[in-house]
Amino acid sequence: MTTTRELLTTHPRETAFDASVLATSIDVLNDCAQSCTACADACLGEQDVSMLVRCIRLCLDCADVCAATGRVLGRQTEMAVGVVRPVLEACLEACAACAEECERHAEHHEHCRVCAEECRRCEQACEQALAAIAA
Amino acid sequence: MTTTRELLTTHPRETAFDASVLATSIDVLNDCAQSCTACADACLGEQDVSMLVRCIRLCLDCADVCAATGRVLGRQTEMAVGVVRPVLEACLEACAACAEECERHAEHHEHCRVCAEECRRCEQACEQALAAIAA
Amino acid sequence: MTTTRELLTTHPRETAFDASVLATSIDVLNDCAQSCTACADACLGEQDVSMLVRCIRLCLDCADVCAATGRVLGRQTEMAVGVVRPVLEACLEACAACAEECERHAEHHEHCRVCAEECRRCEQACEQALAAIAA
Amino acid sequence: MTTTRELLTTHPRETAFDASVLATSIDVLNDCAQSCTACADACLGEQDVSMLVRCIRLCLDCADVCAATGRVLGRQTEMAVGVVRPVLEACLEACAACAEECERHAEHHEHCRVCAEECRRCEQACEQALAAIAA
Repeated sequence: MTTTRELLTTHPRETAFDASVLATSIDVLNDCAQSCTACADACLGEQDVSMLVRCIRLCLDCADVCAATGRVLGRQTEMAVGVVRPVLEACLEACAACAEECERHAEHHEHCRVCAEECRRCEQACEQALAAIAA
Repeated sequence: MTTTRELLTTHPRETAFDASVLATSIDVLNDCAQSCTACADACLGEQDVSMLVRCIRLCLDCADVCAATGRVLGRQTEMAVGVVRPVLEACLEACAACAEECERHAEHHEHCRVCAEECRRCEQACEQALAAIAA
Repeated sequence: MTTTRELLTTHPRETAFDASVLATSIDVLNDCAQSCTACADACLGEQDVSMLVRCIRLCLDCADVCAATGRVLGRQTEMAVGVVRPVLEACLEACAACAEECERHAEHHEHCRVCAEECRRCEQACEQALAAIAA
Repeated sequence: MTTTRELLTTHPRETAFDASVLATSIDVLNDCAQSCTACADACLGEQDVSMLVRCIRLCLDCADVCAATGRVLGRQTEMAVGVVRPVLEACLEACAACAEECERHAEHHEHCRVCAEECRRCEQACEQALAAIAA
């Protein structure tokens, strides 16, 4: 059991939706935030940095949006679906845009390949969380 | 001229939309993030904290979403409208939900009154930025 | 191999210190940020929230400081030891203070016990990163 | 009266030190976080981006550390001096390092000149807050 799952289990209130989907989503969001921070930084360290400007920008955006989404989804007390839903929708778009750009550089830069995969995983996690909320 | 405006003026690339609307939006987003952090903390310090649980939660969400939105909107290089738009829409909802809750406590707690006003201002700033992007 | 480790391995520049210690530190910092966000929220959801005010506050601080520290340590390009060192020192203190407070509530609240352990782990990770930088 | 000052005035608990110094420090920290985000982005948009890699990195660090410090200092309930002090010390170093690097590019890039000034202002604000805490 991950720490995220353990903390959900010990929470005094009921989770808004399935705790297993929720725990996975939170973990994937945090992992994606970290990957995007690392990929933006790796791009910045490349000799062809001028070719990676859009990639850096979208990674920085994605890191900020995933981090905020992870926090919002990480709170169970008095969760407001009217806030969580559009936040997840925005995060899904940030991940999709970042994945698409990273995929363009995946052949030349391994960190972009790894980050693109992480962003696609997070895009799916947002979709699953949205489906769980709607259920 | 505020520092935000000055930094937009000295940016090497063209802003995605009207620099004056943009600068105001960024400043209001950052101010609202700060107000929500302060109001959550003031609520936490009140004797009737148990009545303010939902207010604290929504202030924490709003602070996180406004801070991320301020960063995304604060970047002009390779701005992706497909990301900025849903981020602003999510922020608008976070501000509206937080304002509504803070307004309920505005009579008893001055910090809630101030924070509600700041959230309404930010809600409008998000609307104006969305309108400017669509134009 | 975790994603954090994989991204360090594919980074174009050499890491400032041992990549294995570095990857562990980054992961523990991010886990601790998440735990503190979750514990603050769980405390907020408890019936005896008024007894947990200090715990919530220190968890919020610790979450913010760990998140910032994880980002600073997560960047390898042009790392400035003069910045990373005091940031790690501040994070160590934030974790120690949060752990101490969570430990006081560990008997009554499982989430405080889990969060205290995570904070102690992070305190050690900061110490190890500081030792690795000094080496 | 700024919103930050107004929210401090309406806080239920006494501030740890002089409210006027505190309000200024919080505002300057938030302004500096915003300036560093904007300067990193402006540098990224420059044609000579490869000359600005260190500047971007230190701006990203400074933005993250200032944002976290602004939040920690923005909370008055149960403030822990043992946490706030090292956080301010770390922030002071992040601002000094960023200012020094931005100053190197101030002649060629106006955004670096503006950002350097903001970082120096924030360095001083951290010093003043530290002095106020010690008093």
